[in-house]
Amino acid sequence: MKTLLQVDFPFDGPFGQEMADAMKELAESIAKEPGFIWKIWTENAETREAGGIYLFEGGASARKYLDMHTARLKGFGVPVVNAKVFQVNDALSAIDHGPV
Amino acid sequence: MKTLLQVDFPFDGPFGQEMADAMKELAESIAKEPGFIWKIWTENAETREAGGIYLFEGGASARKYLDMHTARLKGFGVPVVNAKVFQVNDALSAIDHGPV
Repeated sequence: MKTLLQVDFPFDGPFGQEMADAMKELAESIAKEPGFIWKIWTENAETREAGGIYLFEGGASARKYLDMHTARLKGFGVPVVNAKVFQVNDALSAIDHGPV
Repeated sequence: MKTLLQVDFPFDGPFGQEMADAMKELAESIAKEPGFIWKIWTENAETREAGGIYLFEGGASARKYLDMHTARLKGFGVPVVNAKVFQVNDALSAIDHGPV
């Protein structure tokens, strides 16, 4: 069942184009993760936060990625990682044009 | 600038098809909100949580919707609503096939 992974964390930048330049190779590697479908990269320069919304093929691949990514973020100096795993309600998402 | 709204809250159900049946009209009304692009409906029967990931045309429409929706959820008896507003990093999302 399609699984949505919601991740956010305190982040001091870079944001915007500078973030895109710094993290291009990371984004390319994420696209190759097992079970990965897509990621929307999120950022908020005002609240000093960043994160991502991911869609995975199933709960196992989402949880495996989350464990790896949490360790990686801590290696980058991120102090705390907020994460939640959800199933997608397909029928309601379809009414609201949700891209799942 | 496209704005992502991340919402989750404690929820005792219904989940799955029962949730879809109960909330079909709400989903139809959400599709008509100003600035709304899409919503993915999220649920987790194990952790007793639900929520949604939304994409809006801009920050103003996202924040206005969030105020209205938070009040509505509290009216449904939801005790606490976790919400974050983010900008989308388009360049990185494009590499990871993010549907924005």
